[in-house]
Amino acid sequence: MRVEGKHYRTVWLDPNDPLTVHIIDQSQLPFKFLVEDLRTVDDAATAISDMHVRGAGCIGATAGYGMYLATLEAQKTLGFSNFIEKSAEKLCSTRPTAVNLSWAVETQLNGLKEATCQTEMVSIAKKTAEKIANLDAEWCKKIGQHALPLVNDIYRKKEDGTVNILTHCNAGWLAFVDYGSATSPIYTAHDSGIPVHVWVDETRPRSQGARLTAWELGKHGVPHTIISDTTSGHLMQKGLVDLVITGTDRTTHTGDVANKIGTYLIALAAQDNGVPFYVALPSSTFDWKRKSGINEIPIEERDADEVHFVSGTSNRGVETIRVTPVKSGAANYAFDITPARLVTALITERGVCSASKSGIFGLYPEYL
Amino acid sequence: MRVEGKHYRTVWLDPNDPLTVHIIDQSQLPFKFLVEDLRTVDDAATAISDMHVRGAGCIGATAGYGMYLATLEAQKTLGFSNFIEKSAEKLCSTRPTAVNLSWAVETQLNGLKEATCQTEMVSIAKKTAEKIANLDAEWCKKIGQHALPLVNDIYRKKEDGTVNILTHCNAGWLAFVDYGSATSPIYTAHDSGIPVHVWVDETRPRSQGARLTAWELGKHGVPHTIISDTTSGHLMQKGLVDLVITGTDRTTHTGDVANKIGTYLIALAAQDNGVPFYVALPSSTFDWKRKSGINEIPIEERDADEVHFVSGTSNRGVETIRVTPVKSGAANYAFDITPARLVTALITERGVCSASKSGIFGLYPEYL
Repeated sequence: MRVEGKHYRTVWLDPNDPLTVHIIDQSQLPFKFLVEDLRTVDDAATAISDMHVRGAGCIGATAGYGMYLATLEAQKTLGFSNFIEKSAEKLCSTRPTAVNLSWAVETQLNGLKEATCQTEMVSIAKKTAEKIANLDAEWCKKIGQHALPLVNDIYRKKEDGTVNILTHCNAGWLAFVDYGSATSPIYTAHDSGIPVHVWVDETRPRSQGARLTAWELGKHGVPHTIISDTTSGHLMQKGLVDLVITGTDRTTHTGDVANKIGTYLIALAAQDNGVPFYVALPSSTFDWKRKSGINEIPIEERDADEVHFVSGTSNRGVETIRVTPVKSGAANYAFDITPARLVTALITERGVCSASKSGIFGLYPEYL
Repeated sequence: MRVEGKHYRTVWLDPNDPLTVHIIDQSQLPFKFLVEDLRTVDDAATAISDMHVRGAGCIGATAGYGMYLATLEAQKTLGFSNFIEKSAEKLCSTRPTAVNLSWAVETQLNGLKEATCQTEMVSIAKKTAEKIANLDAEWCKKIGQHALPLVNDIYRKKEDGTVNILTHCNAGWLAFVDYGSATSPIYTAHDSGIPVHVWVDETRPRSQGARLTAWELGKHGVPHTIISDTTSGHLMQKGLVDLVITGTDRTTHTGDVANKIGTYLIALAAQDNGVPFYVALPSSTFDWKRKSGINEIPIEERDADEVHFVSGTSNRGVETIRVTPVKSGAANYAFDITPARLVTALITERGVCSASKSGIFGLYPEYL
């Protein structure tokens, strides 16, 4: 999407220097916009583990490019295969729970098996890395295209002319390679001329909404307003939300949605006020094994310091301050489960379906 | 309640110096515990308008003492009555929407009408100020006593022995003179030996939960854990909340509850998970005129900077930082409405009743 009028992806190979991969350093946003260079597999692994890149699709693509950088480095070593193997392990261990990461590394390793020499390996790895990134962008783009009729329907029925969409956390292009999942319908509608306004949930404790979603919407020129996570219910009671679109970290094949903590509360408010609640996801996010979100999906508990401390800017630069009493404890659950019954529909790269086994397998019969 | 083992109220007349009123400066909490002296009506007005005191009951009691300080000052002026009149106006204009404030000032003015000389006026104003503060504390204490059987019932049915109570914002003793409304059941249960643990909602954007409720619970020795406002639904899905108790800024005589933004979302989650949702209030918080919370209670929209900026401590002391992109706007609705249908019961100084016209007038027939 656009930043100051220029098109960016979250990770890309330099078009003039095939030895360098670029990423946007998301750890600095929204306070600084920095493009970082990755020249080694270690650079890529560190970018992932230090969360300079984050978000399932973006991590996967960075790992794909990391494996390509590994083939470049391996040529300079005595043990090519050994270096590749260790690089794969290194990348996979950076964020062990991210499914896209191991998928990208596996895809690279499978591709490399076809090569007959080191030069061919480099060439295959480069192509595979580009393919992984392009596929991510393509799927996200299609999510937006499939959602467009839904947004357009609401637009045509509205009298005041602006479609108000509420979203939570960052399922934006920053979390993928381009477009995003939850934001793809927003960008697609905006770019096609539908007046869209986005309510951006702050998303405490890591504030991905206020820090990342607000930033990327602002840079692309989409009107938006940041709200505290306490606000969605009131807005819906007052008729100020036309639809909700969130992303998901994992959705069971029965339609239960694991997403950033707080999503369940928004879904409850949407149901209570008759507001459509959509979840946007590429099919790589479906869990084809688990049935019950609440009983079977483990919820990550993160460091309490994310609740105790907040980062932001003062005239001294970026600072971190404590916002709670020193002797109080805090709990930090990262995700919650929105039961399928609260989800109006899922928006995937293959189309829109109900959040149910029949709806999901109707679009993806090959997983039955 | 207790701070470092010593009993405090939020506002009190010095027992050895009847010319000085003390308050806890809540604007500095939880970072600094400062007791501030008020010696003039201007001191009292500034303490209210600068939010060194806040919360309906606490503001009312401070205004009551402010009128007493005004009688002391008026004796030194040429126009006693004129000074009293202007002091009343000054106090009432500090926070025009606070009902308790004008009620306290009116109560003082009515009392002063009975006096036959200036000395008697001072004496009456002093007694009235003490009476206002004592009544506030007494009502809050009774709320805790009426709630105790509810908490005890849950305690006796629990196997693991600890009662988990979730609360939102600060309806604590800091918001009143003592005990608090939502916290009174917590303190009463804790002091009577029931093991209680409190989930404290951070309550963005002003963070009264993380800053004030966590602080006062900690000082009184009540086990508690701060959580982001996104967390209540997940905790309830996992059976980690036995009951919710919140305060209210205004409750219609039909049982609709206006309270800090986010309360409605918690009530929805409580209903979805079969968790009892109680609202604690002294009868001064009932709105005997309005019927529909959503249609008739205006919702205050506050400065967006409360969303954009966060205060806390670093090793340089208390600092304020910006947490959002500079070009993004924010909205800051202060309250929302929880419809009566989502409220299990109201806990008042006269007992527990259903959140309905019949329940409320059953306890308060004189308002019929």
